[in-house]
Order: sequence, then C-alpha cells, then structure tokens
Amino acid sequence: MFKVLKKSKISQARLTELKTPHGKILGPFFMPVATKAAVKNLTSEELKNLNSQILLANTYHLMINPGQALIKKNGSLHQFMNWSGPILTDSGGFQVFSLAKIRKISEKGVEFSEPKSGKKFLLTPELSIKIQRNLGVDLAMAFDDVVGYPANKTKVKEAMERTTRWAKRCQSQVASHESLFLFGIIQGGIYKDLRLKSAKEITAIDFDGYAIGGVAVGEPREKMKQVLKWVMSLLPKNKPRYLMGLGRPEEITYAVRQGVDMFDCVIPTREARHGRLYLWKSQISNLKSQNFYMTININNAKFAKDFSPINQTNLKQYSKAYLHHLFQTNEPLGMRLATLNNLKFYLDLMKKIRENIKNQAL
Amino acid sequence: MFKVLKKSKISQARLTELKTPHGKILGPFFMPVATKAAVKNLTSEELKNLNSQILLANTYHLMINPGQALIKKNGSLHQFMNWSGPILTDSGGFQVFSLAKIRKISEKGVEFSEPKSGKKFLLTPELSIKIQRNLGVDLAMAFDDVVGYPANKTKVKEAMERTTRWAKRCQSQVASHESLFLFGIIQGGIYKDLRLKSAKEITAIDFDGYAIGGVAVGEPREKMKQVLKWVMSLLPKNKPRYLMGLGRPEEITYAVRQGVDMFDCVIPTREARHGRLYLWKSQISNLKSQNFYMTININNAKFAKDFSPINQTNLKQYSKAYLHHLFQTNEPLGMRLATLNNLKFYLDLMKKIRENIKNQAL
Repeated sequence: MFKVLKKSKISQARLTELKTPHGKILGPFFMPVATKAAVKNLTSEELKNLNSQILLANTYHLMINPGQALIKKNGSLHQFMNWSGPILTDSGGFQVFSLAKIRKISEKGVEFSEPKSGKKFLLTPELSIKIQRNLGVDLAMAFDDVVGYPANKTKVKEAMERTTRWAKRCQSQVASHESLFLFGIIQGGIYKDLRLKSAKEITAIDFDGYAIGGVAVGEPREKMKQVLKWVMSLLPKNKPRYLMGLGRPEEITYAVRQGVDMFDCVIPTREARHGRLYLWKSQISNLKSQNFYMTININNAKFAKDFSPINQTNLKQYSKAYLHHLFQTNEPLGMRLATLNNLKFYLDLMKKIRENIKNQAL
Repeated sequence: MFKVLKKSKISQARLTELKTPHGKILGPFFMPVATKAAVKNLTSEELKNLNSQILLANTYHLMINPGQALIKKNGSLHQFMNWSGPILTDSGGFQVFSLAKIRKISEKGVEFSEPKSGKKFLLTPELSIKIQRNLGVDLAMAFDDVVGYPANKTKVKEAMERTTRWAKRCQSQVASHESLFLFGIIQGGIYKDLRLKSAKEITAIDFDGYAIGGVAVGEPREKMKQVLKWVMSLLPKNKPRYLMGLGRPEEITYAVRQGVDMFDCVIPTREARHGRLYLWKSQISNLKSQNFYMTININNAKFAKDFSPINQTNLKQYSKAYLHHLFQTNEPLGMRLATLNNLKFYLDLMKKIRENIKNQAL
C-alpha cells in the first residue's frame, strides 16, 4: 500500500506513493480540511480541479452532525459529499480536547456535552474506530489524548501514557484483512523523554502509518522543530509519516526535509476567509530559501486600485482590486476566490516539493 | 438594436432579440441580480455556464463602493467583474427610496447620507446617467422617484410627475450616436389615472425601451396585474418592455403573456440563501398551469435522509440530504449550491418560455 519512490540525497525528504481504495496519492502531500464534509466555500469539483489528492474530515463533527448512521446509510462519506478520492478522518481526540470545560476524561474514553444541543456523548477509542469505519474513509486515526500548550509535565505524561493504551485498543479494533489504513499518534508535548517514550511505544504497535500529534497547539515554532528532531529518526522508514495540523509553507518544507510525508492545516482556508492570500514571489522559487512566498492582506487600502490579477495560475481573470471590493462589501464570492487562491498555492507547493525531491533539489 | 422575432397567437407574448455591444439577448429574459458587481456566492464563469445572457448591477451601490471612477479606470464594469456579456444597471432611484429616513428629495435630485460611512451624496438624473455611462454598461435606466406601498394618491402623483420631468433630463443626457441603451420608467402606483398619464408621458419621450417601475414594492399581487393591464397596451410594440423587480415564476409567465420581455428579481438568489429551492414538478411542464413548479425548504427535517439529487440538471451529483446537512452546519457551500439550483431554474424557465412562444404554446 505504501512505497518510498525516491529518497533525497541532501535531506531526509522522500517521494512516496500511498495506494488507497479511492486512488493513489503521491507524497509529500497536503490534505485540504473538510471538517464537516465540505471544504468551506468550495465544491468537490473545484477541489478535483485544484488537483487535491485527498481531503480530511473530522470524526467528532460528523458523529454529531449528520451522524455516522446517516452517512453509512448513504454508502460512505465519499458518496455523501460527492468526493471520489481518498479521505482521511481525524479521530476526534483533538476536538474533544478543545472542549476543555465540558469534557470528562476517564480510562474508558471522553464524555462530553455537545455545545449546541447540550446532548451527551461518550467517545471511546473503540467508538472512534467504529465511526471512522462506518464513514467508509480510507485513512483513519487512533483516538488520542491531546494536551494543549503550555501544560505541566505530569499532565502531559499522563495523557501520553493514556494515548499509548488507547492506541492499542484502537489497533485491536481493526482486522488484518480490512482495507482501513490506521495511523498511530505520538504525543508527549515538548518533553524529550516523553516524546521518545511515546515514539517507542506507538511504533511498537503495528500501525499502517505514524503521526506526530500535539503540535500546532500553541507552542513556539522552535519547539515543534525540536519535537521533529527527537522523533523522526525513531519512525519506521517503510510507513507514512504525518505531522498533524501544520503549517505555514516554510514549516512544511522544513518538515519535508526531516522526512514528513503528510500534512493538513486550516491555514490556507481559514486565512482566506480573512482576506490573507498566499502568493509566490516568483515563478521559479527556491524552496530552501526562507522567502519563496509572500502573504498579502487584500483588505489593505493599497489593493483598491490594483488591477493586477489575483495570481498567475487559477485566478488570472480576477483583479486584486475586484477581490478587495468583494471583501469591502462582504460579498461571499470574496472568501471563495481567496480560498481558491490559497489552496492552489498550497497544492502547487506540494507539487513543487515533489518535483524538487525528484530532482535532488530539496 | 431590438427586434420582435415572433408573436404568440394565443397571448401578447413575444419572442425578441436585443443586440448590445456585449452580445445578443433573446427575450423574454431574466437578469440575475449582481447588485454590488457580484451575484452572491457565484463566479462569472458559473453564470456563463448557467447560460445567463445578461446581469443586473446597481448604480447606487457601485457609486458608493468601489466608486464609478475606479471602475472607469479599470475600463468598464464588465472588465472589473470579469463578465463579458451585457449588463443593465438600475439607476439608483429604487435604492434611495428605501433610505426613507435619511434622504431629501428636491427637484434637483436626491440628497442622502450613506448609512455606513455617513458620507453625503447628491444623486441627480444627470449624475445617474453619467455614472451608468462611466460604468460602461449596455442598458441604463432613467432616474425615477419611487414611492412605496401603501402611499396616498397626492404623494404618488407628485412622484410620478417628477419622474416624468427627470426622465426628460435623463434622456437629454444621451447623445443619439451613443451605444448606451436608455429605458424610461413608468410610475403611478396603483392608481389607474396616474399610471395611464405616466405611460403617455414617458412613451412620448423617445427612449430605447420602457419599464414599469414601482411594482414589487409591497402591493398585493392582484394590483400588479391591474397595473399591467392598464399600461401594456400603451407601450410601443417595437421597443423592449421591462417589468422591474418581478417575480415568482407564475408572475413571470403571467407578465410574459401580457407582453413583457425583461425581468429581474432577487427571489432566486435571496431565497436560496435561506434554503428555499425552486424545482420543476415534471420534465414537461405546462407553463400555463398554476403549478408547474414547487418550492421546498431544505432546512426541513424530512430532507435529512433524502438521498435523491438536488435537481436533475446542474446538481445531480449532490443529494438533498447533503444540502440539508450544509445548511444545518452553516457551511457556506450550502447557499452556493442552493443559488446554483434556483438560478438554473429561473434561466431554464425563461428558455422554456421562449420555446413555448416559438411553438405558439404560451
């Protein structure tokens, strides 16, 4: 199912191929975030046209609305959202962690009240896997106990150890003949000994891939880099490596050079909705430099009279002045065009990264 | 520029052709509303794919944001919003009328404070034409004095008479060699004598087309029908006739049979944003029947498990259950899909109307 096609000679970067029931994915790859079965503002046809290879959805959100039973009845999440490519779901661990005040963690799982309806749920490792299987996704994540930043070491240790116990329970739910591809998640916060221990314990379980979780939870960028340095060498070379929730373009290129194959992040879509655009500095960009791209805030008055195209790729036909106007007048088309720009940038970035690895340039 | 291609033998309906600098428009036609230079949620490419022949924008909104000077600098409104087809602009009369509390009408024009910025503007018949010319639109409207419903006769009479005087001032602004196609607007509320007087006075001015204004301002549907009966026979047969701001599908078919050629309405786009969908009852619809279509509210719980397609035309690939989910979870894609459905319905309706007239069936 997973192959390393080529290894960089100048870094740990790898060109990879992951075969799923819904198609092949070349890595390193980026997963646009479709939390509630839709990438905000975009149709699945647009995502296909953007050459997105895979989408990421969320177990927590989908179990609440519309519910796993409904999606199962419809066939699968692919059918429901009209996306024929691969889908990965996060397990819900990160989301229940963000419900800090209304959740109760026990060894069994996490009990929480859904903020809108007040309805009570108990999400366990077993249930998370069952839901992900019912959604019919290609790649599933183990249910983990995520701790924010900052957090004291005792708390992080506890959560890390629970994550290992839960990981075993998750793995035991998946039969060897199943096509469901399950990832284990390494926790341990910013503590070296905890990260090393977690990496050893999680990789001792025979998952189909390994993820680094508990990053992008507010810690300084340097801490994330440290975590990568500690953990990456402990991950098996023949399995995909996923850095969860990251990141800015330069963080992605950095992590790729440490050997990461998979990424997801709300940055391109969320920032688009606030008018922040990701743009290439030049057509031929050196991805090893720190400044191969720039961001602009289209709300800035200087763009009111800028009739140059939004970008040189998928939005040549619309000017920055027009996009500025759409944001100034709260026209919903504005967020949509900005989202198309940013996802195009991120997906092109991954394509360039793969080309660079192929050419031994990254 | 304007031709009647065929007349119905069973009603006053006409198949028409209007040539503009940005292309030919077959009538009767419907203009999707792009008030602030964008149809809410849609790209201009989508509007082209929906076979929209023309868009409608608004002088009042565009003079405030981004301003006529900016659009003129960019070339034209077509260039600014990336729409290469014809555009009609309303003159701003209707919009300043809705600013009731913060406007002051004099013979010269309407003084008003823009609600957001508080900035003062004076919109005159001359300025409205100048702005529409600067926007580079194909079809422009005379600046009229619109009165709401209900209103006492004295007030309606005053506004109607002012509309005539303003109409002359507007017409005098357009040179005979200009490609700008200018429409006069008939007012007079729900009063027969006033409507007849207005129709006579406005048609005495050599406009390129004639519109019936001051309808769809809150009056009962029957009153609108009366107004049409009084006015239509007074309109020249060799010029296009435009019923402003209407309407529901059955109102459009009714008006077509009275001889109306042009329509615009926010119903398909606005109701889409609230989850109301316009759908055909069957593939072969009798447009003379009262119930050739139906509307559904996709928010209704019964659609949660309805996996049938949204429609059989442009949204076959998405289910009603999915659209229901998008509305329930406030995913912006929901409004967009609903808008695509409703505009497809309205534009298909106009196409069917034209086919029916061709076949002497309407």
